[in-house]
Amino acid sequence: MRIAMLGAGNVATHLSKALIRSGNSVVQVWSRNNENAIELALQIGANSIADFESIDEDLDLVIIAVSDDAISYVADSIPNKENRVIIHTSGSTDISVLKKHPNSAVLYPLQTFSKDVDLDFTNVPLFVEGNNEDSLTKVLSLAKQLSKKVTAINSADRVALHIAAVFACNFTNHLFSVSQDILEKSSISFELIKPLIFETVNKIAENKPTDVQTGPAKRNDLGIMTKHLEILRNNPEWHKIYGLISQNIVKKYANPKSSLK
Amino acid sequence: MRIAMLGAGNVATHLSKALIRSGNSVVQVWSRNNENAIELALQIGANSIADFESIDEDLDLVIIAVSDDAISYVADSIPNKENRVIIHTSGSTDISVLKKHPNSAVLYPLQTFSKDVDLDFTNVPLFVEGNNEDSLTKVLSLAKQLSKKVTAINSADRVALHIAAVFACNFTNHLFSVSQDILEKSSISFELIKPLIFETVNKIAENKPTDVQTGPAKRNDLGIMTKHLEILRNNPEWHKIYGLISQNIVKKYANPKSSLK
Repeated sequence: MRIAMLGAGNVATHLSKALIRSGNSVVQVWSRNNENAIELALQIGANSIADFESIDEDLDLVIIAVSDDAISYVADSIPNKENRVIIHTSGSTDISVLKKHPNSAVLYPLQTFSKDVDLDFTNVPLFVEGNNEDSLTKVLSLAKQLSKKVTAINSADRVALHIAAVFACNFTNHLFSVSQDILEKSSISFELIKPLIFETVNKIAENKPTDVQTGPAKRNDLGIMTKHLEILRNNPEWHKIYGLISQNIVKKYANPKSSLK
Repeated sequence: MRIAMLGAGNVATHLSKALIRSGNSVVQVWSRNNENAIELALQIGANSIADFESIDEDLDLVIIAVSDDAISYVADSIPNKENRVIIHTSGSTDISVLKKHPNSAVLYPLQTFSKDVDLDFTNVPLFVEGNNEDSLTKVLSLAKQLSKKVTAINSADRVALHIAAVFACNFTNHLFSVSQDILEKSSISFELIKPLIFETVNKIAENKPTDVQTGPAKRNDLGIMTKHLEILRNNPEWHKIYGLISQNIVKKYANPKSSLK
């Protein structure tokens, strides 16, 4: 398929390369920052364009891979044409943001992209949606060329997926940061805790997270939790996070029957 | 060295096996639950004992590997003898809990132990402390037989380490649970989010967590965060966790200069 890529960030870059590897043609690149458009266009052998009027009329797909708050502006700026499908790549944006266009779809790659790290796109789970049967068929067929893991999903479930990803990945990484900050205060290297982190994640490869929960809150060890909260009292934010998540764990695993034994 | 193991849980079991593999002798096992003591004793070719008076007088080490709230009771129950070192294995318990004994030490393995999963103990970071030079020398020498990663650390820093581990591992696993619960509500398999989790952790193998933070809070994307909070409003606990950690991330990465550009 012949494609225009609107956007030149991490998602646009990785997606463009994966599209080309799978035999499709990315023929035009647009970015809010024209220099970025030129750079990506050079990398993938496309033409950069400076405005939406320059999008070729005979393309099959126009992919909008810009920041979430810019999708609506970009979608409304693209001239309305019958023959092509307009696609966005966002987790938490409803397909209806593309309602100006008769054929629209979503292709949401569930992965964290780093600019300079090459990634095997065939293993990236892709979640797709179409505004009609034809759009869905086209985006499904495209997705299956890119990845072995393709799921059709509606906009509501896609937001749930994005929220789940925020908890499991963005928040997790922040807890790693907090952990590193705590260790640095005691001049302990973060390296020393990494084996424990890797083992924590290895465990969920084969087990449900609820089945392998450990720690003071899981055991409802009030002595240890009180001691930790006392030590954290000088950092109100860490204190709050510790208290809130511990409370949540205690409640989840509390067994009222155990007090009857 | 000739050792008595008090406790028969996950830590006691893994530690006993590692001690034997490294050429030491675990000759006696005690547990609050005598059946557990017998089971572990059988596994490692030791004798089980039913009371603290039965601990051999000529042992080099007595290791207390029981739950944190039981350490004090066990330590005070062990007859006081000059010639041996009493060791506990807890992260958040001060060495002073062993003050009845002239020679005491701590050997804290920073790892999450599962009963049935064999683990390469030589890669488990061990943190040691002694109440005098002699105890420290003995526990250091023992630890170095068990693991390649041995660090001497005082009780205060060891608690900090334990708190850091709670954030990076126990809380992280709980966020995986929350993520799974959110996905199940939309009938999405947790399997689909695992590649993203593994990539999140792969990233910190080579990078500082603060350098690879991503997500709506990092970008201070108010539109997405508001939408997610609106969807989470029916689960006040998830709503609170989402709000608190997002706030914390926004604050950490806020760049006041960016609004001046």
